[in-house]
Amino acid sequence: MGIKHQKFMTEAMKEAEKSLNNGGIPIGAVLVKNGEIIGRGHNKRIQLGSSIFHAEMDCLENAGRMKSLDYQNCIIYTTLSPCAMCSGAIILYKIPMVVMGENENFKGQEQYLKDNGVKLLNLNLDSCKKILGTFIESNLKLWNEDIGI
Amino acid sequence: MGIKHQKFMTEAMKEAEKSLNNGGIPIGAVLVKNGEIIGRGHNKRIQLGSSIFHAEMDCLENAGRMKSLDYQNCIIYTTLSPCAMCSGAIILYKIPMVVMGENENFKGQEQYLKDNGVKLLNLNLDSCKKILGTFIESNLKLWNEDIGI
Repeated sequence: MGIKHQKFMTEAMKEAEKSLNNGGIPIGAVLVKNGEIIGRGHNKRIQLGSSIFHAEMDCLENAGRMKSLDYQNCIIYTTLSPCAMCSGAIILYKIPMVVMGENENFKGQEQYLKDNGVKLLNLNLDSCKKILGTFIESNLKLWNEDIGI
Repeated sequence: MGIKHQKFMTEAMKEAEKSLNNGGIPIGAVLVKNGEIIGRGHNKRIQLGSSIFHAEMDCLENAGRMKSLDYQNCIIYTTLSPCAMCSGAIILYKIPMVVMGENENFKGQEQYLKDNGVKLLNLNLDSCKKILGTFIESNLKLWNEDIGI
């Protein structure tokens, strides 16, 4: 994997770890524009009692209001394949590329993203699989709630 | 239209009007479970400087954390056809039906919703078209930002 992608995925992982340390679901994301992190976030289902603050959504929210042109120069890094909601947000704002840490614990709407012209790169990282996989083993009901099962 | 649908769409319109009165984009939504409103909300792009609080998202967030089975007894009422993000959230949580006020000011991911088994009903209401249409005329840049154009 490119050094650049590794660096930003490490930041997304820091967000996942922050969530875990706060008792939350360990998924993290960062939004990068022209090589600079402009938003970061993590899943806050537990922390905020939230149904919409998945990692990517929290990250987009923390990036703040932006124009469509700004999103077109962005890459979103997320430790997990994006679900339907997060994929929808990525498509709404026409973010052209998603770099994910893994898609084994959960595979989101990857075909839908591709069909809408979003480029996907799966780094397939053991670190991302392990932090979430271990969490899911001990929190299956909560996890199913998070992915709408 | 059924009296039931009219009643809940009127509540969604109240949310749209509340947003307008607060200087925001006039789109509203309510989530109804077994004939009872369990969440309501409106677009808060302006009010919160938010990129994710569309009406449907605010409504889902205000309904709080719920299990998948609970969503399966829900209908979401929204004054406008749901965008990709909101459609994604509806699909994630498997909400089986969307009742919309109109789809002339904006037509969202209706086919994608249908393809995922979501039932759609468009009430095609002049009141919904007018409140948003008038707003868009005076706030086109803001509106384009909201729909990712």
